[in-house]
Amino acid sequence: MAIKYVYAFEEGAIDMRALLGGKGAGLAEMTRIGLPVPEGITITTKACIDYFDSGMKISDEIKTQLFDYLGKLEEKTGKKFGGTENPLLVSVRSGAAISMPGMMDTILNLGLNDASVEALALKSDNRRFAFDSYRRFIMMFSNVALDIDSELFEEELATLREEKGVLLDSELDAEDLEKLVGIYKSIYKKKLGTDFPDDPMEQLMISVEAIFKSWNNQRAITYRKINDIPNDLGTAVNIQSMVFGNMGETSGTGVAFTRNPATGEKKLFGEYLVNAQGEDLVAGIRTPDPIEKLAEHLPEAYRQFSESSTILETHCKDLQDIEFTIEEGKLYFLQTRNGNRTALAALKVAVDMVDEGLIDKKTAILRVNPDALEQMLYPTFKHNDLESKTPIAVGLPASPGAAVGKVYFTADAAVEHTKAGENVVLVRKQTSPEDIEGMHLAKGFLTSTGGMTSHAAVVARGMGKCCIAGCEAVKVYEEDGYFTVGDQRINEGEIISLHGTTGRVYHGAIETTQPVLTGDFETIMKWADEEARMEVRANADTPNDADIALSFGARGIGLCRTEHMFFEASRIIEVRKMICADTLEQRQEALNNLLPVQKQDFVEILTAMDNMPVTIRLLDPPLHEFLPSTEEGVIEIADQLGITAEKLNVRINDLHEFNPMLGHRGCRLSVSYPEIAVMQATAIIQAGIEVKRAGKKPLVEIMVPLAGGSREYNYVAGLIKETAAAIVEESGVDLHYMVGTMIEVPRAAIVAAEIAKEAEFFSFGTNDLTQMTMGFSRDDAGKYIDEYLEKKLLDRDPFQTIDPVGVGYLVKMAVAEGRKSRSGLECGVCGEHGGDPQSIAFFEEAGLDYVSCSPFRVPIARLAAAHAFLGSQGYSSH
Amino acid sequence: MAIKYVYAFEEGAIDMRALLGGKGAGLAEMTRIGLPVPEGITITTKACIDYFDSGMKISDEIKTQLFDYLGKLEEKTGKKFGGTENPLLVSVRSGAAISMPGMMDTILNLGLNDASVEALALKSDNRRFAFDSYRRFIMMFSNVALDIDSELFEEELATLREEKGVLLDSELDAEDLEKLVGIYKSIYKKKLGTDFPDDPMEQLMISVEAIFKSWNNQRAITYRKINDIPNDLGTAVNIQSMVFGNMGETSGTGVAFTRNPATGEKKLFGEYLVNAQGEDLVAGIRTPDPIEKLAEHLPEAYRQFSESSTILETHCKDLQDIEFTIEEGKLYFLQTRNGNRTALAALKVAVDMVDEGLIDKKTAILRVNPDALEQMLYPTFKHNDLESKTPIAVGLPASPGAAVGKVYFTADAAVEHTKAGENVVLVRKQTSPEDIEGMHLAKGFLTSTGGMTSHAAVVARGMGKCCIAGCEAVKVYEEDGYFTVGDQRINEGEIISLHGTTGRVYHGAIETTQPVLTGDFETIMKWADEEARMEVRANADTPNDADIALSFGARGIGLCRTEHMFFEASRIIEVRKMICADTLEQRQEALNNLLPVQKQDFVEILTAMDNMPVTIRLLDPPLHEFLPSTEEGVIEIADQLGITAEKLNVRINDLHEFNPMLGHRGCRLSVSYPEIAVMQATAIIQAGIEVKRAGKKPLVEIMVPLAGGSREYNYVAGLIKETAAAIVEESGVDLHYMVGTMIEVPRAAIVAAEIAKEAEFFSFGTNDLTQMTMGFSRDDAGKYIDEYLEKKLLDRDPFQTIDPVGVGYLVKMAVAEGRKSRSGLECGVCGEHGGDPQSIAFFEEAGLDYVSCSPFRVPIARLAAAHAFLGSQGYSSH
Repeated sequence: MAIKYVYAFEEGAIDMRALLGGKGAGLAEMTRIGLPVPEGITITTKACIDYFDSGMKISDEIKTQLFDYLGKLEEKTGKKFGGTENPLLVSVRSGAAISMPGMMDTILNLGLNDASVEALALKSDNRRFAFDSYRRFIMMFSNVALDIDSELFEEELATLREEKGVLLDSELDAEDLEKLVGIYKSIYKKKLGTDFPDDPMEQLMISVEAIFKSWNNQRAITYRKINDIPNDLGTAVNIQSMVFGNMGETSGTGVAFTRNPATGEKKLFGEYLVNAQGEDLVAGIRTPDPIEKLAEHLPEAYRQFSESSTILETHCKDLQDIEFTIEEGKLYFLQTRNGNRTALAALKVAVDMVDEGLIDKKTAILRVNPDALEQMLYPTFKHNDLESKTPIAVGLPASPGAAVGKVYFTADAAVEHTKAGENVVLVRKQTSPEDIEGMHLAKGFLTSTGGMTSHAAVVARGMGKCCIAGCEAVKVYEEDGYFTVGDQRINEGEIISLHGTTGRVYHGAIETTQPVLTGDFETIMKWADEEARMEVRANADTPNDADIALSFGARGIGLCRTEHMFFEASRIIEVRKMICADTLEQRQEALNNLLPVQKQDFVEILTAMDNMPVTIRLLDPPLHEFLPSTEEGVIEIADQLGITAEKLNVRINDLHEFNPMLGHRGCRLSVSYPEIAVMQATAIIQAGIEVKRAGKKPLVEIMVPLAGGSREYNYVAGLIKETAAAIVEESGVDLHYMVGTMIEVPRAAIVAAEIAKEAEFFSFGTNDLTQMTMGFSRDDAGKYIDEYLEKKLLDRDPFQTIDPVGVGYLVKMAVAEGRKSRSGLECGVCGEHGGDPQSIAFFEEAGLDYVSCSPFRVPIARLAAAHAFLGSQGYSSH
Repeated sequence: MAIKYVYAFEEGAIDMRALLGGKGAGLAEMTRIGLPVPEGITITTKACIDYFDSGMKISDEIKTQLFDYLGKLEEKTGKKFGGTENPLLVSVRSGAAISMPGMMDTILNLGLNDASVEALALKSDNRRFAFDSYRRFIMMFSNVALDIDSELFEEELATLREEKGVLLDSELDAEDLEKLVGIYKSIYKKKLGTDFPDDPMEQLMISVEAIFKSWNNQRAITYRKINDIPNDLGTAVNIQSMVFGNMGETSGTGVAFTRNPATGEKKLFGEYLVNAQGEDLVAGIRTPDPIEKLAEHLPEAYRQFSESSTILETHCKDLQDIEFTIEEGKLYFLQTRNGNRTALAALKVAVDMVDEGLIDKKTAILRVNPDALEQMLYPTFKHNDLESKTPIAVGLPASPGAAVGKVYFTADAAVEHTKAGENVVLVRKQTSPEDIEGMHLAKGFLTSTGGMTSHAAVVARGMGKCCIAGCEAVKVYEEDGYFTVGDQRINEGEIISLHGTTGRVYHGAIETTQPVLTGDFETIMKWADEEARMEVRANADTPNDADIALSFGARGIGLCRTEHMFFEASRIIEVRKMICADTLEQRQEALNNLLPVQKQDFVEILTAMDNMPVTIRLLDPPLHEFLPSTEEGVIEIADQLGITAEKLNVRINDLHEFNPMLGHRGCRLSVSYPEIAVMQATAIIQAGIEVKRAGKKPLVEIMVPLAGGSREYNYVAGLIKETAAAIVEESGVDLHYMVGTMIEVPRAAIVAAEIAKEAEFFSFGTNDLTQMTMGFSRDDAGKYIDEYLEKKLLDRDPFQTIDPVGVGYLVKMAVAEGRKSRSGLECGVCGEHGGDPQSIAFFEEAGLDYVSCSPFRVPIARLAAAHAFLGSQGYSSH
C-alpha cells in the first residue's frame, strides 16, 4: 500500500505530532473532539522528507493524494478552488513537530486570482475587503514563498497613500486596492520574470514546496544543530479553508485563555474585535473588547465559545490559549495551544487542576517552570510605575529584583549611611571582598565593570540582593563622589532605582512591592520534594544565611565559605596580622586570636542546621584579597597593624599574582601554611563537640578546596584528620564528621579514583571547573562571551548553565571514577550552577546526590530537582 | 627443595640483579670472570621479602643457609669469624636491584671484639690500626644498624683530641684509641641498655636485620612510591671478607675509570693512596697519586689492574668505575659500576665502542643522556676561573650557559649600549614582551621576580641565552639605575657575570668558553635520527631562529609565533594603532600596513624551511601586552599614536584583565576581530605563493590558538580557508596548506573528535594545557611549586616535565579522539615540554608525530626522540 502523505484534520489526533506537526495535530484534535474548526488537511512531515530524498521533487504520489484531498475539501466546504462563484480560499502554514525559527510563515487567502476575487467581492458584498485580501495575498505569497523583499510592496503602498493624501491603509478604497494589485503583480513579474500565477493549484504547489525548502534554510539548520534536533524530522504543511471575521457586525476575531494567565483564576480571560481579522488584533489600531463583552454582543457565540473552551481545556488538561474567529455569527477555532502564564498563575493552575482531578501531582510539578519562580522570590517594582519611567542606563541583569536608595560610592559610606537610617545603593567600578560589610547593608549594587559572575554579581545573588553589573555607560568617580551617564551627573546622596531583573537603572525612586508566596507555592514545593531524588542544600556563610536557607527549605549547607567570616571588621585585623606575620609564632598568635571567633561562627551555624549536613570549606581565596588595594588603604591598614606602609607594600607585592585565579589559593595555602588548616579544623571540631554536647546533632563535612591530586589532598586531609582525631579523642564525644574535597581543577576530575581513596565526599566547584576547563576567566569573560553567544559559537553562558559536553564530561568522569574507589561516594555541586534548572537536569543525569545554591534560589532548585528526576523517568508536563 | 636464600659470589652472575641486588650481582660477575674479588656471600632479596612476610623474623631456614655459607667462607679464607688467631672480618652492605635513598649504609670491620682485635693487632703488627678499625666498627654499627646518633661518638673523639692536645685523629695513638673503644661501648650501653655485642654472629644478625628493615623505612617507601618501584622487590645483603689497603707501603686503595670520564679518551684514569683505606681517599687529607704512578710504585699490581680492568670493561661493554684495594701487594676489586661521564665523554665512548665492536649503534645512542647534551650547547665559564669566585646571589637557573656584560635596567638602554659596542646584561624585576628587542641584543637576563617559566625564562631558553630568574636577593631600582644585594650596590654599567646553569650571579667578569661540537656529536645525532620515530621541529619566530633551527637539525618549524614579529620597533606602532582603533576602518588601515611586513617575514621563513613544514600560529596574546604599562610609556606612546594619554588609558583599562591567561586572547581575538585573522591568513598565503613561485616548496600549516570547541574553531578556520581559497584561486598556484589547531584548553581535548572533523592537525600547547588542567598560573606558581616539590606533593615541576597522569591523560585522549574523526591526524607538541627528554618519552607513548622545541634544544630532542622510540621497543643502554 502506498504511504499516506495527506490527512484530513478529522483523520488525525494530538498524538500524531511527529507526522502532522504540532499545529496540524492540534487542529486534528480539536476537529476530533467536535469543536468547530474550518475544514482542512495536513501534508505530513514524511512528505517533506521524501521531497528532499528525491532530489527536491514533490512526487506524483504526494501530488495525487493532495489533489484527492483537495477535492474532498471542496466537497465538504461546497466551495471550489479558483471558483468564480463560491471560491475556496485557504491558509497555508508550516508546522513542524518542534517549532523553530526560520521556518516559512503563514500565507493567507491563497486561491485568489482576478476571477475569484470578484466572486469574493460579490459574496462578501465588500469589494474593498476582497481586493484588500487579494493584495495582501500577493504580497505574502511573493515574500514568504518566493523571497521577494516585502519592502518593495510597502513602498508602493506608501506611494499610493501619499498620492491619495491619506495616512492609513484603511482609508484606501476598493479602487485604490485594485490598482495596487496590478502594481504588486508587476513587481512580481519584474523580480521573477514570470507572471504572477493565476492558477490556485500552482499557487498552492509553489507554497508547499517553499515550506518544504524552508526546513533546510540556514537559520533552521543552525537552530537544529544548536538544539540537537535531528535533521530528518521534516515539517508538515497545513492547508485550511479561510474563515473571515471581517464580514460585518456579526463577525469578529479574538484570543482567549481558559484561565487567567496572570493569576490562574479559573475564568475565561481574553479579548476580541468585531468585524476584524487576526492581524487587526495584533496591529493595535482598534481597542479590543474583553471577552465577557461577547456575551452581550453575540450571546450564542459566547455560550458556544465558553462551553467549547471548557471542553477543550478538559480535553487538553492544561490552560489553553485559543485563537477564534466568528464568521457571520458562526464560531470557529483556529488554533489552540498551552498558554503562557506567570509563575503565580502556573502554581495556582497546577494545584487547582490536581484538585479538579484533571492532572496528577507529578504533572502539576512539571507544569511550573522553575526559572519562572525567580520573579516571586525577590522584591520588584510596581509594574505600572515602572512603565512610565525611562532608564538612564542599562547594564547586565546580574541579580534580579529591585532596589531603591541613595547613591554612595564606598562600602564605608554605605555602612555609615545605612546606620543613619538611609536606604543605600552602592555604586562602584567593581566591588571587592573588602566591601563585604557595606554590601551586606546596601539595598543593591551597581557596578560599571565586571560581568554576570563578577564579585558584585555573585555576592548579590548569594545575598538575594539586586545587582546591575558591567553598566558601561556609567562612569564612576568614586573619589569625587559622583557618577555620570552621558551628560547627566548623579551625586552622592541622590536617589536611584535599580531593576536587577532587566538591568535598568532609573534616576529617582520607583515604588517596590514584596511578592506574596501563596499556599499554592508551598503545596507545589512539598510535592516537588516528594518526587526529587537529589537533595537541595544552600550556600550559606553566616548563621543568618543559614536561617534564610532553612526558611526556603534547604536540607543542609553545601558550601560554607569560611573566608567570608574573615572579612568582618572585627576579625580582618587578625587575618591581616596572620598574613603579614614574619614568623610562624606571629602567625600562630594571630590564628589563636581567630580560633574562638571562627569556632563561634560554626557553633551558630551547626546549631541552626541541627541534623543536617554542613559542608565547611577551608580558606580558599588568595591572601592578597585580604589586603588593601589603594595607597590610602595601605597607610591606614599599616597603621592598624603597627608596621610601616613600606613593609605592608612589600608583602602586597609578594602576594601579587598575574593570574590569581590560578594562583596561591585553596589547599595550596594549607600546604604553605599548615597552621591555617589546623586552626580551622580545630574551630570546626571544637564547635561540633560543643553543639553535640548541647543536645543537637551536628553533621560536619570538612572540605578541602582546589585539590588537583591525591598526594596534595592527602597531605591537607591528613592535617585535618590528625587535628580532629586528637580533639575528638580528648573530648570523649562521638562526633560525626567527614573530610572530602572540592573537584574544581580539571586534573582532580581525571584522577578522581585516586583522590576518592581518601576523600569521603566530592563537591563540584563548577564555577572554577568551568573557568579552567574552558579557559574562561569568570571576571573577564563577559567581554567575549556575549560575542560568542551572538555568533552562535556558544549556546549559553557557561557560567550560568553548565557546559554539558566539556565541563560536564569531567563531572561525570569524576563521579564515575570516584565511585569506583568508594562505592556510594557522596557527590554534590556547590557552584552557582547548583541553582540553575538546566544545569540541575544535567546533575541529575550525572548522578549527583545534591545540589547546593544561594538560599534565595533554593525553591527554584527544589522544583528543578523534581523536574530533573521526573524527566529522567520519562514524565512530561503533558 | 628449600628455597636458596644465600649465594656465594661465585654462584651468581650479573643478570641476577633482581635476586642478588646490583652490588651483589656485580661482585658475582667479577668473581665469575676471574677477577680478584675478596670472598663473600649475598643474602637474596627473597630473604628480605620473607622477613617481612613472616612478621619481621629471619626464618630458621635463612639462618641455617647463612651459617652454612659463613662456614664455607671461613674455610675458603682460612679465617675464623671471631677467631683469636686469624679472625674473619667482613663488610656488610645493602644492595637492592635499584639503588635508592634511605637504604642502610655500609658497616666495615664486622667481626671485631675485644679478643679478635688483639689478633688483628698481632697479625697486622699494627696495634693502632687494629683499634682504629675497632672503634670505627663500633661507631658504624651503633649508628648505621642501631640508629644511635653519630654525634655522640664524634663528641667523645673531639674531647679526646682536646685532652691530648692534637688536631688530627691520626695523631691519636693505639692507647688513645683503645680507651675510645671503651668509651664508645659505654655510649652504646647507655643508649640501648645492653652491652655492645661481643659475638660476631650476633653483630652480623643485627646488621642483616637492620638492612632488611631499612627496605621499609619512610624515605625508601616514599622514594619507591614516587618512582613507581614495587614494594615487594626487597634488598639483598652482601657480606664480604675485609681486605686492608692500610697494611703498609705495599698496600693501598684507589678508584679508577677504564676511560677518561671527562674526555672519553681510552686510557685508565684514576688515583690511589698508598697505605690507606677507602675513606681516606674520600676525606681528602692526603693527596692521592694518579693511577699511572702505580706502575712505578707497584708494577705488578698495576699490570694486573690494567689487564683486569680491560677484561672487565670488555665484559661489561661500558666505561667502568672501579674501586680497588691492594693488600700487601695483592690486588682486589671491591666494586665496579658503569661510570658517570661528561656529555663529551659519553659521546666519544659511545662512538668508540661501536668502532671497537663492543656495542651496536642503538646501544650507543642510549648511552648518551639527552639532558647532558645541554652543557655542550651553550657557552659556559672556564671551570677553574669559576671555582675561585664567590657568587653575590643565587637565583633560579632559568636558562643555562654563561653571560658577562655591563648591567643595564631597561630594554632601551640594552639596545643603545649594545649598539655602542658593549656587552649588556639586562637586569629587571621582570621582563615583558615590550622588552623583546633589548632582550634580543643582551647577552643574558637577570630578574628579581618570576619563576622558571616566567617571560624572561621562556624567552631566554627560546633564544638560547643565559637567564637567572626569581633572584630574590637582588633588589632592582630600575629608575635610579642600580641594584643591591645585601649591602652591596651595583650601578648601571658595572660588569656582572651570570651562570645560568647554576643560577649564580657574580660581580665582575669571568672568562667564558665556547664548546666545541665534535664529530662524535654529529655521529650520534645521525644515528639517533635513523632510529627515532618522532620528528623534531623547532619553535622559531624569525628567519634567524629558523637558520639556527636548521643548523641544529630541525625538520621543520612546529611553532612560529606571529606576535613576536609584532613587537619589533618599526611595527609595534601599527599594532598599537590597530588596537586603539575606534572603527573597523581604522583597524583595517593599520592591518593593511602590517600586511606587507608580515608577508615578508613569512617569505623569509618559508624560503629558509624549503620543503619542511612550518606551523604558523595566529596572533595569540591578549592585546594589552602590546600597550605600555607605565605612566611614562603611556605618554610617549599616546604621542606616537596621535591620541591623548587619557584615551590610551581608557583603552588600556578596557583591556585590563584579572586573569589574562584565561582572558581575551588566542582565537577569541579572531572572533572579536575577524579582520586580524584575515590579514594574517592573507600574509601567510601570499608569502607561500611567492615562495613557491620562486621555485621552493613551502609546506604551510596555519594554526588557530586556544580553541575550546568545534564551533569556535570552525568559525576561525572558516575565515582562514575562505581567505586562502580566494587568494590561491586568483594566483593559479597550487599551494599546499593545512589549517589546524592548538590543543591547549582542557575542553578542546575532551571534544577533540568534533574538532578534528574540520581541523587538519593538532599541536599540543602543553604549557597552557598544564596551566589550565592543574590550575597553576605559570607566572605565579614558582612560589608554591617549590613547596610542593619539597613536600613530595609533586615529583617534578609540571612546567618542565609533563604531568603524565593529568595533563597527559588529556593529551592521549585528544590524540585518540582526534584520530577517530580523522585517521592519521598529524599530532605534535609545541610547548616547552617538546624539548624535555622525560616528556618526549611520554609523547612517544602518546603517539605524537613530532615534538617542537627551542632551536637550542633540538639536538637534545632528537636524541631523546630516539631514546623514546628505542625504549618503547624494549632496548636499553646495557
